[in-house]
Amino acid sequence: MSEQFDAVDVIRTKRDKQRLSEGQIDWVIDAYTRGVVAEEQMSALAMAIFLNGMDRQEIARWTAAMIASGERMDFSSLSRPTADKHSTGGVGDKITLPLAPLVAACGVAVPQLSGRGLGHTGGTLDKLEAIPGWQAALSNEAMLRQLEDIGAVICAAGSGLAPADKKLYALRDVTGTVEAIPLIASSIMSKKIAEGTGALVLDVKVGSGAFMKDVDSARELATTMVGLGTDAGVNTVALLTNMEVPLGLTAGNGLEVRESVEVLEGGGPPDVVELTVELAREMLKGAGRTEIDPADALADGRAMDAWRAMISAQGGDPDAPLPTAKETHEVLAPADGVLTKLDAYQVGVAAWRLGAGRARKEDAVQAAAGVEMHAKPGASVRAGEKLLTLHTDTPERFGRALEALDGAYTIAPEGSRPDLLPLIIDRIAE
Amino acid sequence: MSEQFDAVDVIRTKRDKQRLSEGQIDWVIDAYTRGVVAEEQMSALAMAIFLNGMDRQEIARWTAAMIASGERMDFSSLSRPTADKHSTGGVGDKITLPLAPLVAACGVAVPQLSGRGLGHTGGTLDKLEAIPGWQAALSNEAMLRQLEDIGAVICAAGSGLAPADKKLYALRDVTGTVEAIPLIASSIMSKKIAEGTGALVLDVKVGSGAFMKDVDSARELATTMVGLGTDAGVNTVALLTNMEVPLGLTAGNGLEVRESVEVLEGGGPPDVVELTVELAREMLKGAGRTEIDPADALADGRAMDAWRAMISAQGGDPDAPLPTAKETHEVLAPADGVLTKLDAYQVGVAAWRLGAGRARKEDAVQAAAGVEMHAKPGASVRAGEKLLTLHTDTPERFGRALEALDGAYTIAPEGSRPDLLPLIIDRIAE
Repeated sequence: MSEQFDAVDVIRTKRDKQRLSEGQIDWVIDAYTRGVVAEEQMSALAMAIFLNGMDRQEIARWTAAMIASGERMDFSSLSRPTADKHSTGGVGDKITLPLAPLVAACGVAVPQLSGRGLGHTGGTLDKLEAIPGWQAALSNEAMLRQLEDIGAVICAAGSGLAPADKKLYALRDVTGTVEAIPLIASSIMSKKIAEGTGALVLDVKVGSGAFMKDVDSARELATTMVGLGTDAGVNTVALLTNMEVPLGLTAGNGLEVRESVEVLEGGGPPDVVELTVELAREMLKGAGRTEIDPADALADGRAMDAWRAMISAQGGDPDAPLPTAKETHEVLAPADGVLTKLDAYQVGVAAWRLGAGRARKEDAVQAAAGVEMHAKPGASVRAGEKLLTLHTDTPERFGRALEALDGAYTIAPEGSRPDLLPLIIDRIAE
Repeated sequence: MSEQFDAVDVIRTKRDKQRLSEGQIDWVIDAYTRGVVAEEQMSALAMAIFLNGMDRQEIARWTAAMIASGERMDFSSLSRPTADKHSTGGVGDKITLPLAPLVAACGVAVPQLSGRGLGHTGGTLDKLEAIPGWQAALSNEAMLRQLEDIGAVICAAGSGLAPADKKLYALRDVTGTVEAIPLIASSIMSKKIAEGTGALVLDVKVGSGAFMKDVDSARELATTMVGLGTDAGVNTVALLTNMEVPLGLTAGNGLEVRESVEVLEGGGPPDVVELTVELAREMLKGAGRTEIDPADALADGRAMDAWRAMISAQGGDPDAPLPTAKETHEVLAPADGVLTKLDAYQVGVAAWRLGAGRARKEDAVQAAAGVEMHAKPGASVRAGEKLLTLHTDTPERFGRALEALDGAYTIAPEGSRPDLLPLIIDRIAE
């Protein structure tokens, strides 16, 4: 194939703050996927995009080019509408686990193609793999059958979806070009659009434990992604939600499965319940099922039935005991007072260092490692009471986990109140 | 060797507009030379430097780290002082050819480690290779002997000088990160400081045919390089000189040798003579020889004697006829009037396309190809008179060369005057 464009010209265009043309974008993504544009050229372009940005049309074309690099899934043969949710990643964010069966129980199919965790945020597949026997890999046919029969599937994304994104994501990870809104938005949305969902709810996290540290940048990312989804014909909305504090009372794979099951049993921490129900409401609305209240399906056990069917269908035993860690270490409250801060990022790093996450893609995770929280901001605590329990199979990790927790929590005098964003900060739709 | 730093952290530092520490710079240059920092990481860093800059201290450390990546030469055993000249590259810039023997004839040794041309600017080695028998490669010992005996040597830089720069330059070339002042300045100065010259005169070109298109950016580059040289103990000054118009009346390897010999014979175009003598004066001043007027050594034939000795010492025959092109094509003046514009860049591209330059490092050049000019801006011309003669061995190249010359010259009514910068625009010293 003769090359119509030149990589250096494309790089210079963005370096010099010009718009990339549609032809340039189509060519550079395709040529990069084919190996004609070299890794060092794409990384220079990614840095130029990081620093000089892309406008809405450029991001849309970039996303379309990444979708065109691979296959697209098609759920139009299903007897029910589809809706999916994507979270930009946070600490203790196990929402997908109760959410997918809850929405399925309300008659909308949830095709969740998930990934594994990298760094301090956990991965949904890592969490479910704490369940004995559960398998992440499914063929497209098995996935479709499970969607039709049970209505919910959480599985590993096949390598055929947006291969350009896969290659680019690995490159961005080693070249300091991860945190750019045009690149994050196009990476997420290329996979979600290629996945073929009819409706999509984005949970854009804000705070120390999230990619987006402040509301303004989270709003910009959410607006960009909602625009991309809408333009591609996917009914897309976004919620901006709090990630200053971990979600729920657990961060770690098996610990989060346990908490998810508690929610499906009608219990669980109030923030996890609230966010699960609110996201389910948005997914049902996106799929045109506004008449259904997901709170009912949670209360009457239908969501739990769907969970059990979903886990069993992928080889998991929903009744098997979850793995427990070989060692635990308790962090006690150093004073009487009110917990006013519990930093999501620091708890996430501690859970990661205990073995819940991986530093490199090829690392294994510990199913039982993580951090259990006994109080959340706003709660009164007494000196000597348990604040956190650290879990790991490898106790030599306690030291570095405790280092990560240095300054992670604040106990203020009685009567103090935490100064935190609300759980659901805003809703972004077109 | 355990790594004290992390490439992604270094990239992020510059990406986020922070200063790179001395430790970060030393590490990243060394680790890149060793292959521990990957090409795609260095290209992201180069783009971040391109867009966010480096301050004087960072550039100085970056330059020092590139020098430390290889060997340094030492001319302290020579019986005479040393001075070198570096041009940032232009069209028709053959000044090194008459300059080196002229300065040698005045008692100052000139160790010119040169490169080959890439793109529209010619390379000094390519020019000298038009002389039958002349060899660019010299051992360090042969170079020292020639400097002691004759006082001037123009040869290929060995691979031992600043290998980090060699690797980085090749990377910048394919990643759109060539034209950044901190990277240009550190690239040039690392080689010149490692080369070990006592004095250095920088000819920083300004205009369409140069890297720096305007006086302000040329002044910034010159000031940066003069600072780097001075801080490294090299007596450094810079002249900003005009590159809106080609230098002299020829652009092309053998054509430029012929013109250089004319200058050494006491003739040649006035701009080439003026710049040669002025740069010689600066080099002699830098070497502490203010009492000598180089114009005398040009007039009385001593410079020509040094040229003949220098060419002979490297196997060249100074009396052999220069190669002539198989084909020529004349461009005639389309009207009577005054030539007010002759664009350096367009003439350079035409010469390149005729075969004088190379598109890729591995390409060969034609010794006789190039553009001969019969008038320079300010001259009166008559319709039908020869304006340019194009030379090539491959006449199928005339078409694209003529395309490059479209709009390259302007003939204005009698009495008009060109609006051009002076030949020597400014002098920059500390």
